[in-house]
Amino acid sequence: MSTFVRRIPEGDNRERNVCADCGHIAYENPKVVVGSVVVAGEQVLMCRRAIEPRRGFWTLPAGYLELGETLEEGAAREAAEEANAEIELDGILGVFSIARIGQVQVIFRGRFKDHTAPRFGAGPESLEVALFSWDRIPWQEIAFPSVHWALNAWRRQGMSTLGAPAGNPADDRRGVHPMIPPRSLGAEDGL
Amino acid sequence: MSTFVRRIPEGDNRERNVCADCGHIAYENPKVVVGSVVVAGEQVLMCRRAIEPRRGFWTLPAGYLELGETLEEGAAREAAEEANAEIELDGILGVFSIARIGQVQVIFRGRFKDHTAPRFGAGPESLEVALFSWDRIPWQEIAFPSVHWALNAWRRQGMSTLGAPAGNPADDRRGVHPMIPPRSLGAEDGL
Repeated sequence: MSTFVRRIPEGDNRERNVCADCGHIAYENPKVVVGSVVVAGEQVLMCRRAIEPRRGFWTLPAGYLELGETLEEGAAREAAEEANAEIELDGILGVFSIARIGQVQVIFRGRFKDHTAPRFGAGPESLEVALFSWDRIPWQEIAFPSVHWALNAWRRQGMSTLGAPAGNPADDRRGVHPMIPPRSLGAEDGL
Repeated sequence: MSTFVRRIPEGDNRERNVCADCGHIAYENPKVVVGSVVVAGEQVLMCRRAIEPRRGFWTLPAGYLELGETLEEGAAREAAEEANAEIELDGILGVFSIARIGQVQVIFRGRFKDHTAPRFGAGPESLEVALFSWDRIPWQEIAFPSVHWALNAWRRQGMSTLGAPAGNPADDRRGVHPMIPPRSLGAEDGL
C-alpha cells in the first residue's frame, strides 16, 4: 500500500495528498452532480431513493457526471437510470454550490420525449417514481436541500423561456447547511 | 505501491479503477473549472499563460474549483491568483462541457471591485495581464476554444441583465475539438 503525506507540491499553494513513495499527487476535486426537473403538464417527476444517503426520501433524477459526458448527456442518463424515463432538456434551471461536501450541481429543466404519454418507472436506485403536482410534492420527505432549491426554481420559471439560472438561496449562499430548514418546508415557504 | 485493476464494482454499471489489495474504488470524475470575464468599460481582462499547456497564449482568469469553495469563491480566487485582481461577480455567462478532457466550465461575468481604478498584474501563472477592447483581443493567440466561447457570450450579453447562460457552440456541442476552428478566429465570426 502506498503512503500519502500532506504536502504543498512545488508551484502549488495548498496541501495535497502526495504519495511518499512516488510523489504522485492525489488531487481531491469537487464533483459535478447533474439532474433535471422533468415536467409533464403541471407535474414534476420525482424518485424515492432506494440507496443511502437518505434512503426512502424523495429526490430528482440526478447523479454524478461521468468522464466523457456532457452535462446534458449526464442529466438524460440519470433520468434513464433512476426513472426509466426518456427525456429532452431545454435549459439550465439552477447552478448550485454545496461547499460542505464539495459538490457543484447543474439542474436542467426537461420533459418526456413522448409528450403524449409520459413513461417512467423505478430504476435500481429508486424505490418508486411518481409525478407530483406542486401541492402534492412530499415536502416532509425531501432528500436534500438542493432538491428544494431546484423545485423552487421550477416554480418561479414555470414553463416560460428560461432566464438566468437560480443559484444558492440567500440563507445558504455556500451550501453548508446539511438539513433542510423547517421554514422552507411545505407550501408556506413564500412561493 | 498498490495495484489497480479495471472492474465494475457491485451496484455500479461501469468499470472503475479498483485497488487489488484493499478494494478501494478510485473514481475518476470530471473536474470543474471556474473563471470570469472581468469587464472594465468596453474592455476585458486577459492573462497570458506562464504555464503549460498553451504557455504564451491568452486566456481568462480561470482554474480548477477547490474543495470547500463555492463557484463564486473559486472564480474570485482565480482572478486574484492569476491577475492580482479583486473582483465581484454578477452572474453566469456560460456553462460549457469539454467532454474530451472531462471538464465542466462555469464562467461568470465580473468587474473590478474598485470601478474607478482597475488594478491588476501578473500572478505566478501569468506572463502578463492586460485589458483589451474587443477589436484588440489577440485572437490568433487564444489558449483554448472555451475562451472564445466565453468571450462570445460576453459580446452577446454586453452589460445588460444576464439571461440564460451560453452553452457549447453548435459546431462543438460535446466539447471534443481540441483546436480552435479557423473560422471562429477574429472579428469575422459573425458577431
